[in-house]
Amino acid sequence: MPEMAEEHVVYIGKKPVMNYVLAVITQFNEGAKEVTVKARGRAISRAVDVAEIVRNRFLPEVRVKEIKIGTEELPTADGRTANTSTIEIVLEKP
Amino acid sequence: MPEMAEEHVVYIGKKPVMNYVLAVITQFNEGAKEVTVKARGRAISRAVDVAEIVRNRFLPEVRVKEIKIGTEELPTADGRTANTSTIEIVLEKP
Repeated sequence: MPEMAEEHVVYIGKKPVMNYVLAVITQFNEGAKEVTVKARGRAISRAVDVAEIVRNRFLPEVRVKEIKIGTEELPTADGRTANTSTIEIVLEKP
Repeated sequence: MPEMAEEHVVYIGKKPVMNYVLAVITQFNEGAKEVTVKARGRAISRAVDVAEIVRNRFLPEVRVKEIKIGTEELPTADGRTANTSTIEIVLEKP
């Protein structure tokens, strides 16, 4: 049987940046070849911080493989929908 | 003489998103083949919003050619330096 394609994803929320940096480093240390950092809305800036800190301070061999941006429709508190931007930063260990 | 390589850049600051969306659309309408949206720090999320709104609402033929992230050292108020993340989103009209 072929090996399942595993997806290593770290979702960026409102916690301190270093929490997510550690999550990414842990996934690489556990053998992941790629880790994808995903964020929406205002967390997008923090996602870029996470990718940059991982590469500049901890894992200099890690490269940015791909960056995708997009839009999601999210429900608002009053029952309507609002468009929110998204980002996916794919980091890879060569 | 060869034509100068013009760089069409829109820097994202703290103004409303639609100001920057209009700036990008204007540059394309004036003949730019590529427009680069640049931002630092918290404005990074807004840069993604600008690129997405331009493509989804106004110029559906425009594509994301490339997205680069980086880090800049900026001086702080107390004379030290702080690392700030940056993004460059290159939009192109085919």
